Amino acid sequence: MDSRRKFIQQSSALGLSHLLLPSFLAKASTKENTPSSKWADGSRLVVSISMQFESGGEPENAESPFPQNLEKGYRDLPAKTWYEYGYKEGIPRMLDNWDRLGVKVTSHMVGTAVLKNPQLASEIVERGHEAAAHGMNWSSQYNLPYEQEKKFIKDGVDAIKNITGFNAIGYNANWLRRGENTLSILQELGFKYHIDDLSRDEPFVIKVNQKDFAVVPYTLRNNDILLIEGKNFSTNQFFNQVKAEFDQLYFESQFKRRMLSISFHDRIGGTPQMVQSTYDLIKYIQSHKGVSFKRKDEIATMALNDANTIRE
Amino acid sequence: MDSRRKFIQQSSALGLSHLLLPSFLAKASTKENTPSSKWADGSRLVVSISMQFESGGEPENAESPFPQNLEKGYRDLPAKTWYEYGYKEGIPRMLDNWDRLGVKVTSHMVGTAVLKNPQLASEIVERGHEAAAHGMNWSSQYNLPYEQEKKFIKDGVDAIKNITGFNAIGYNANWLRRGENTLSILQELGFKYHIDDLSRDEPFVIKVNQKDFAVVPYTLRNNDILLIEGKNFSTNQFFNQVKAEFDQLYFESQFKRRMLSISFHDRIGGTPQMVQSTYDLIKYIQSHKGVSFKRKDEIATMALNDANTIRE
Amino acid sequence: MDSRRKFIQQSSALGLSHLLLPSFLAKASTKENTPSSKWADGSRLVVSISMQFESGGEPENAESPFPQNLEKGYRDLPAKTWYEYGYKEGIPRMLDNWDRLGVKVTSHMVGTAVLKNPQLASEIVERGHEAAAHGMNWSSQYNLPYEQEKKFIKDGVDAIKNITGFNAIGYNANWLRRGENTLSILQELGFKYHIDDLSRDEPFVIKVNQKDFAVVPYTLRNNDILLIEGKNFSTNQFFNQVKAEFDQLYFESQFKRRMLSISFHDRIGGTPQMVQSTYDLIKYIQSHKGVSFKRKDEIATMALNDANTIRE
Amino acid sequence: MDSRRKFIQQSSALGLSHLLLPSFLAKASTKENTPSSKWADGSRLVVSISMQFESGGEPENAESPFPQNLEKGYRDLPAKTWYEYGYKEGIPRMLDNWDRLGVKVTSHMVGTAVLKNPQLASEIVERGHEAAAHGMNWSSQYNLPYEQEKKFIKDGVDAIKNITGFNAIGYNANWLRRGENTLSILQELGFKYHIDDLSRDEPFVIKVNQKDFAVVPYTLRNNDILLIEGKNFSTNQFFNQVKAEFDQLYFESQFKRRMLSISFHDRIGGTPQMVQSTYDLIKYIQSHKGVSFKRKDEIATMALNDANTIRE
Repeated sequence: MDSRRKFIQQSSALGLSHLLLPSFLAKASTKENTPSSKWADGSRLVVSISMQFESGGEPENAESPFPQNLEKGYRDLPAKTWYEYGYKEGIPRMLDNWDRLGVKVTSHMVGTAVLKNPQLASEIVERGHEAAAHGMNWSSQYNLPYEQEKKFIKDGVDAIKNITGFNAIGYNANWLRRGENTLSILQELGFKYHIDDLSRDEPFVIKVNQKDFAVVPYTLRNNDILLIEGKNFSTNQFFNQVKAEFDQLYFESQFKRRMLSISFHDRIGGTPQMVQSTYDLIKYIQSHKGVSFKRKDEIATMALNDANTIRE
Repeated sequence: MDSRRKFIQQSSALGLSHLLLPSFLAKASTKENTPSSKWADGSRLVVSISMQFESGGEPENAESPFPQNLEKGYRDLPAKTWYEYGYKEGIPRMLDNWDRLGVKVTSHMVGTAVLKNPQLASEIVERGHEAAAHGMNWSSQYNLPYEQEKKFIKDGVDAIKNITGFNAIGYNANWLRRGENTLSILQELGFKYHIDDLSRDEPFVIKVNQKDFAVVPYTLRNNDILLIEGKNFSTNQFFNQVKAEFDQLYFESQFKRRMLSISFHDRIGGTPQMVQSTYDLIKYIQSHKGVSFKRKDEIATMALNDANTIRE
Repeated sequence: MDSRRKFIQQSSALGLSHLLLPSFLAKASTKENTPSSKWADGSRLVVSISMQFESGGEPENAESPFPQNLEKGYRDLPAKTWYEYGYKEGIPRMLDNWDRLGVKVTSHMVGTAVLKNPQLASEIVERGHEAAAHGMNWSSQYNLPYEQEKKFIKDGVDAIKNITGFNAIGYNANWLRRGENTLSILQELGFKYHIDDLSRDEPFVIKVNQKDFAVVPYTLRNNDILLIEGKNFSTNQFFNQVKAEFDQLYFESQFKRRMLSISFHDRIGGTPQMVQSTYDLIKYIQSHKGVSFKRKDEIATMALNDANTIRE
Repeated sequence: MDSRRKFIQQSSALGLSHLLLPSFLAKASTKENTPSSKWADGSRLVVSISMQFESGGEPENAESPFPQNLEKGYRDLPAKTWYEYGYKEGIPRMLDNWDRLGVKVTSHMVGTAVLKNPQLASEIVERGHEAAAHGMNWSSQYNLPYEQEKKFIKDGVDAIKNITGFNAIGYNANWLRRGENTLSILQELGFKYHIDDLSRDEPFVIKVNQKDFAVVPYTLRNNDILLIEGKNFSTNQFFNQVKAEFDQLYFESQFKRRMLSISFHDRIGGTPQMVQSTYDLIKYIQSHKGVSFKRKDEIATMALNDANTIRE
């Protein structure tokens, strides 16, 4: 029994179990390589926001809040306008909101969405946000042969580069569903990180092709797509849930490195009701000391350069 | 880089990124033809309410909150009474509520519902609301041949005209699902606008048969049918969500033209709990300066006559 | 144009449309036979509570919150204990709650549930509540031939009579699904009312076999089964929604007869969380003047004897 | 008619029905063998918390919040990281939370999850919590032949014993689905209690193989898996619902023995938002006098040794 456990058991015997047992101690026993340090730049808690840029790149008759009972051979015209909202209202509104709040975000961009609305893609970058890759098309890649998947990824990153001038170093697969070869391809193509992992509340480093590769975990529970999606959660439920998430992570960040990830999609997170709730949420978070908002490329770089980062 | 972007980047560099960057500036860069002006009549924000009049026109054994497991060959008798509620309680209660609140709304009417309850259809018009068309029957039209679809639309508008005396100039397709010919037929038949589009938070003008045609966007997210439908949202979730929508649009309306669309259906929005929540919601909205409630025919006319309206 | 409409239009022209237009006026135009009077006994608003007594009578492997993936040939043992909760905890807890609150309710009883727990069925009656019929078995009747359906109903009412001594005069079909013959059979068997109708917020009288028969409408929206059912609504959503329903009906009851119907099922409405919310809800309702809580047999009798009741 | 009923009816006649009729009286009439005493150790209310330790033991491509549309022959890589979260973040975070709050819980452990993360399994026990059995694999057992089921259970309990040193005496079947032989096997193997029963809000004793066996009822309604599961409930709905549950049971505990059961799963209840809500919930509960938090082995032992425990 190590000394920490002895301390815990003695505390318990002495009726001291109500004393705070910090998380970094708890973790130390199960993961000997887990560092107790915080962020290299002195941040107490890092918040990472995603703004997915996908609309305009959706396939014909993509799933939407409309009933999925369209007869074969017809186009789902109202569903198309639901997607158009993403670039006509959603992204511009969110861009204004980030500026009001003074935060920079990461925008994973579907290649075809970039080609459809090049000015908007460029504006995202010009306003200081990170462009990251999200595949050439809005489709699965886990089931593609190696070379086809490589082209699928490379075409997407090239589209972003050509239109916005930004060299994407981060990746997100459709519905997070990477295949067995994806990480190897990403490493080959010069990517520095991916986000298709939900396993931790902080970034970590893995070995891909014998080299370091960063994982900046994504989120489903602080994500408009699962929460809102037409009718699951109202926006104030979203607000309350992510606020609770922040409160706990902020508490834990006294003792160890913590990251809060929040995700929005153009046609969902860009509605007035969601932007209003997001504004209130970010203002609440910003009222706490030591919180910094960072793009995922900054987070990945910081994690890769820090010996205290978890390495799996 | 245009001057707006320079301003944004400099502000950012100077730590001024917390300053408000108004939406109309943001939009200007991506849509050069987007006007920065507000409403022609001086309104700061326009609110458009729909009250769908459909019950009584539903097909035999239409979907309802009851389990969809009825054996073939039987009538769903309790589901029928769920629809009857729409004209026996729902519409009368909403009509009283609109009068209490002093607002006029747009009622898209299914032709067979009008024929089933002619007095109620007439009363809607006599109390100052707009009658708009919603097809002769409660059924799809996107899959009809041109002439059949034209008859389907014309029969509905004739039913409204014959019963209420109102000449409908606005259209809404079943579940918003227009077909490839719908707009052309509407233009032919003398309609001025349709609502089967979710792409913007303001009206806009398109060309149909080389002539102007107005689009007054509908809503799914401020719509009782998706939110309530038996069990998705409670009425206070609906209230909170639409309140957040208003708050954001009211903020944006300082800088550009904005419209809030809210939709109700006879058998859902007409329940006591929904009418109570709607009353509180409208009272909250009315406590803000510069907000006007308009029928969609007024909105369409104003948009068509205004050179600053977005033209796609 | 009748004088009410003239008044409405003149008020509108004079900017008086914000004045209250009471519901009874609004209804008068569409239903000439709608009375403006309130309840015969002077109540301003009547509240009717259902407490369904069904558990113990459920079929083998009845639907429950457990995943519906049980292999054929096995019994769903945990689901059975979910139902047992209905009579071991749910009904006893609700009975205590009704006594704390001083209200009497209507309990629709499945025949086999009564036979399974005769003492509990008797206790419901002995504590002053109404026993009403709900079929001999927990199964559909709309698809039964006339004589079989008659036996199905009669066996259920006999079970109640034999066990509790109560002569049931009210009926509720499984999932409200009566068939084409049900009302005729009920009239033949001496029933005075049924509840399988959602069309109004007050009782009304219909002709069955040329004789008066009362309809005391049920509710889905103030009903634990649709709202809670494992995971749709939390109990405070239920509380808020029914509170909003009451507020509106209480407002309307100034002008016309109104009834609030609320429904609970043994295994759902009888949980501690639901009983706590119900207690708060009823206390809130009881804090308003002129509200009376009545059993459905009392409501039906009052409606049948009152010339001002709506007759369809 | 017994004297209690006479009292109830007389109270009613005298207008005293608003007086409190305590639950233990109400129950006495229907279950003559129901004791009115409270807990043997003087607790007014006992709270039992479950922390299911299952992640790492899940089958390939187990169900998750991701769309269930993966093509055959591929691994669901992001879903796997959703499960990893359970042992990398969820259990460590909950362990810290229990220590902050000073409560001990019961952890039902899947055998393969224990083998996958032996240090974490040991730490649960070393920090004072109960290890209970949950089958060798994450799979159904109700459909296994007697000897196979016996091996399935025994292998799981052996894995726990070998890794943690704890001798599990409590059992929980996958999705609570025990088979016809399960209880007999558990008795044979030396178990003292099982939890796969939802029928009561207090423990009770049954006869298995002619010997006493305790049932410590589980919960679905105070359980993160049904309430949260990606998108059903927000965490504040969970908080409010379990708070209402506590309030009612605390009220009832004046008169009779009551137990509140709350359940968490590593990958769901271990998220920051759920741990934050749980912290607030437990603090609220702890602010009430007479409440004690107990492991299920303690509860089972107390129930078995107490003549006043319900015996079915």
